Amino acid sequence: MLTSGNISKLRRLLKNIRKKDAVIGLVPTMGALHDGHISLVRQAKKDCDYVVVTIFVNPTQFCVGEDFNKYPRTLAQDKKLLISAGADMLFIPRTTQMYHHDNSVYVDEGDLSRGLCGAVRPGHFKGVCTVVAKLFNIITPDIAYFGQKDYQQVCVIKRMVRDLDFSVSVKVCPTVREDDSLAMSSRNRYLSSQERAKAVILSRALMAGRSMINNGEVSVHKVTGAMRDIVSRCEDVKIDYLEIRTADNLQELSRISGNVVLLGAVKIGSTRLIDNILVKARKG
Amino acid sequence: MLTSGNISKLRRLLKNIRKKDAVIGLVPTMGALHDGHISLVRQAKKDCDYVVVTIFVNPTQFCVGEDFNKYPRTLAQDKKLLISAGADMLFIPRTTQMYHHDNSVYVDEGDLSRGLCGAVRPGHFKGVCTVVAKLFNIITPDIAYFGQKDYQQVCVIKRMVRDLDFSVSVKVCPTVREDDSLAMSSRNRYLSSQERAKAVILSRALMAGRSMINNGEVSVHKVTGAMRDIVSRCEDVKIDYLEIRTADNLQELSRISGNVVLLGAVKIGSTRLIDNILVKARKG
Repeated sequence: MLTSGNISKLRRLLKNIRKKDAVIGLVPTMGALHDGHISLVRQAKKDCDYVVVTIFVNPTQFCVGEDFNKYPRTLAQDKKLLISAGADMLFIPRTTQMYHHDNSVYVDEGDLSRGLCGAVRPGHFKGVCTVVAKLFNIITPDIAYFGQKDYQQVCVIKRMVRDLDFSVSVKVCPTVREDDSLAMSSRNRYLSSQERAKAVILSRALMAGRSMINNGEVSVHKVTGAMRDIVSRCEDVKIDYLEIRTADNLQELSRISGNVVLLGAVKIGSTRLIDNILVKARKG
Repeated sequence: MLTSGNISKLRRLLKNIRKKDAVIGLVPTMGALHDGHISLVRQAKKDCDYVVVTIFVNPTQFCVGEDFNKYPRTLAQDKKLLISAGADMLFIPRTTQMYHHDNSVYVDEGDLSRGLCGAVRPGHFKGVCTVVAKLFNIITPDIAYFGQKDYQQVCVIKRMVRDLDFSVSVKVCPTVREDDSLAMSSRNRYLSSQERAKAVILSRALMAGRSMINNGEVSVHKVTGAMRDIVSRCEDVKIDYLEIRTADNLQELSRISGNVVLLGAVKIGSTRLIDNILVKARKG
């Protein structure tokens, strides 16, 4: 696996690869890799001739007071996982390679990014859009892979690709879960064993919501109420949001129908976790 | 000259051209072409194997109350000029091709774009950055050509290329002037003959400023004062700004030294004109 943090070198290498008409896949990550990330790499290996993984803990997508400094860095382990998953190239730039001291250009999305996580993480999606735009321009992938776990991010990135005419397909891979259904996340490492036991409540609540919809419930109020009740019963788990939105563009609904997504964010101790489930509602 | 407004068709054509290792040049315009634009096309023809010109009167770079609706559209004449200048492809999209009804992603620059024209044209450079980013992504040129006449725009675009890692060289071509030194501009068409006679005062003032600096004047106050005096003597010409900034990053100066740019914007009747001159100050 070729490993570099140098943008110019990367461009030269990729230019040669592109000349051979190779299909290039990109899996952008912040490292601290788990089976969710690796599932993206494996899917990319199936679809593409050449798979580039990036590890960059992007400072512009962390808000003031968030966990940028303590975000887990596990590079040696990450490399082993990527090699065994078959990644062809690892791009791992320093912050100074990615941002000049007088950096002044950003990409921002002004609709899908505003509620849900965007409401409590101001500037987060601006940082995400900007760094992903940069990675698209550096790597010029044919296909870019993102996990469904970050559902709002996926919607924002897809919108960015559409609105800025990036020539890349966005492929969304299913959330990978632990045995007890907790969505895999680099941030799960923050959890104490007691917190870890409680963390499963988020996916349980979303699954309960899905069951209600599968059984014909169409009231947003009733389903979100039931999900809130489930999480509220668990001490020390604080609800940030539990919502039902349209699956394609995250619009609020008056009545559940069509493809919807149940999304939740909770805080356990100082750890913020998110999760979501897609549901196709029965025809009303 | 291949002419199309269809993004997918354009991409297909350009993909084939790029396979032949052709160097692709891009000259983005809003049409109403004059010798300034044509000089960009001729320079692109010298440097590149394949020259794409775009004509798109970009609504997002016009502010409320500006001249979007009356901006001159002279397509038949534009095409003739481009064919005789040797343009290989004309991309002329409709607004609905470039912007979806729920467009929500924009590129913005937050430093160089804030003063000068940015101060009286809020959102202008956001519109410029966004549409140029889109054109870069659609056409993926090796070199993009801009006129020095829009000096602040050039600085903002260069910054965008740097900060978003676009793989394109920005080439800046000298301002083309009428015989009496008025900078060529599509907006000169708005001027009545009386206004046209007065319009020359802007370039005259800038040239007088340049002479003072060439003669050793280092006071920003004195040079801008002299330029203001010249323009003020001309009735019906309203100064928007007359400034001296560092040439590379448009910073304000306390004392003139190094490479500087004299920039001016005036309003004559309802027509807003801009101009600038680069000067290398004598070593203090």
